[in-house]
Amino acid sequence: MNNNNQIMNIAYQGIPGAYSYIATTHLFPDRETKGYSSFDEIFESIKHGETDQAVLPIENALIGSIYEVYDLLFEYNYSIVGELFLKIDHALLCTSTASLESIREVYSHRKALDQCKKFFNDHPGIKPVVYEDTAAAAKYVAEKNDPTLAAVASISAGNLYGLVTLKKQIQTNIHNYTRFVIVQKNPSEQLGDKTSVVFSTAHEPGSLIQCLLPFDQEHLNLTKIESRPLIGSPWKYLFYLDFEHGNDQQIVDEVLTKVKPSTSVFRRLGTYKGGETINET
Amino acid sequence: MNNNNQIMNIAYQGIPGAYSYIATTHLFPDRETKGYSSFDEIFESIKHGETDQAVLPIENALIGSIYEVYDLLFEYNYSIVGELFLKIDHALLCTSTASLESIREVYSHRKALDQCKKFFNDHPGIKPVVYEDTAAAAKYVAEKNDPTLAAVASISAGNLYGLVTLKKQIQTNIHNYTRFVIVQKNPSEQLGDKTSVVFSTAHEPGSLIQCLLPFDQEHLNLTKIESRPLIGSPWKYLFYLDFEHGNDQQIVDEVLTKVKPSTSVFRRLGTYKGGETINET
Repeated sequence: MNNNNQIMNIAYQGIPGAYSYIATTHLFPDRETKGYSSFDEIFESIKHGETDQAVLPIENALIGSIYEVYDLLFEYNYSIVGELFLKIDHALLCTSTASLESIREVYSHRKALDQCKKFFNDHPGIKPVVYEDTAAAAKYVAEKNDPTLAAVASISAGNLYGLVTLKKQIQTNIHNYTRFVIVQKNPSEQLGDKTSVVFSTAHEPGSLIQCLLPFDQEHLNLTKIESRPLIGSPWKYLFYLDFEHGNDQQIVDEVLTKVKPSTSVFRRLGTYKGGETINET
Repeated sequence: MNNNNQIMNIAYQGIPGAYSYIATTHLFPDRETKGYSSFDEIFESIKHGETDQAVLPIENALIGSIYEVYDLLFEYNYSIVGELFLKIDHALLCTSTASLESIREVYSHRKALDQCKKFFNDHPGIKPVVYEDTAAAAKYVAEKNDPTLAAVASISAGNLYGLVTLKKQIQTNIHNYTRFVIVQKNPSEQLGDKTSVVFSTAHEPGSLIQCLLPFDQEHLNLTKIESRPLIGSPWKYLFYLDFEHGNDQQIVDEVLTKVKPSTSVFRRLGTYKGGETINET
């Protein structure tokens, strides 16, 4: 809601049926959503007041952290105000006249196709074809209405575009999820039990551990720690850290005050309620 | 070289002109290379003795760690025996009859296109089209021999497939590199100054820091630390750690002996000579 109490659209990357769309509609079932083709456009849309919040993927269990989103959060100085873990299940989707025997080409995002390698090994007559993203592939197959084509995407995408689910969970590793965060211009006004920070330290022996010791002293639980070489600054690193602190907000300020002197750049990305894990359907 | 002193091919992912190919030919200028379409196939080729070593991307400054390679290293129990940092420069490549005015579509790997966003914003009449990978896109554009098409790939790929470099370094962030590792079945017999390990700990307050303290006590420098949720085991994490130890091999054994009791799964991925950073050309 903006200052005029007008409910604004919530932004996500992709088109309806994308995993980002599923996360967004789960978190905000009563709000209008707006899909953008890139993360940059989403941050610009918030900057210019077209949208006031976005739901963005920030890490995936099989792919890792999505640095592009971290970089934009940093650049625009926006805050994380919530999170959600979505289990990722890829389905084989096709038109109602198609069957496993008729399919020759399967369209999807390159990573989704990679994650279904066993299926393609077991079906050497079916060729994976790289497409822009999963939901766009489902839309394309529906439009073509050709029984030799199929898509790998969410079941929701299949339902939205009128495709049949020929096979569920065709990914090789069935345990996969993506962590999404809710992002907005200003920090949350709600109490949170989890905080995300990013900072840089000098690349010298012990500097990382110096930054971690205060968390240990306060018995706070780190749920993510990741170093990333700082591009253009050899031997310096960015560190991404998430930690849990229950409802004790004071401890967050105390521990971060202790950490800051060991860092150069320091940014608190947000304090928010740790998210639940959901299935698509 | 295998037991019969026969020099074997060295494996990489992709086709000639790929960034992996550039890294491989730099590291092994005198050896025959063999490109594979997937990382799985590379590990299988080593297992079956078709190749004895591979050069694999393990992290990129803009994308992060490549978990697929880490997972395969773990699964096959192979060792890292060397590394190289390759600066990634994307060039705009086209046929000799093309110009910036004639080009309508630019083919490349989705990530490479994403990294050239500024170029596409500045040239709204040119459409990015997702293709399997950068070098394959260059090959495709060369085969089509159509002045409305271009590719984003390395200059080497352009040279190999007879394309002209219309524009160098069209990526938005010019500071990007990929870290490659040399992988083989058995640990290196050479002395090294850098070691990579992976281990898991219980998800409880302080467990990560317990594993890090021995490195601090020995004043060893961590160059990478990354937590990754362990799929299928809620609340447990894998940690990836790289550290430098000069030529002191004994300290490595000592510190790892101290770390192990705080871990459940523990794997030493390899000790090797820290790699140099090179430009493509």
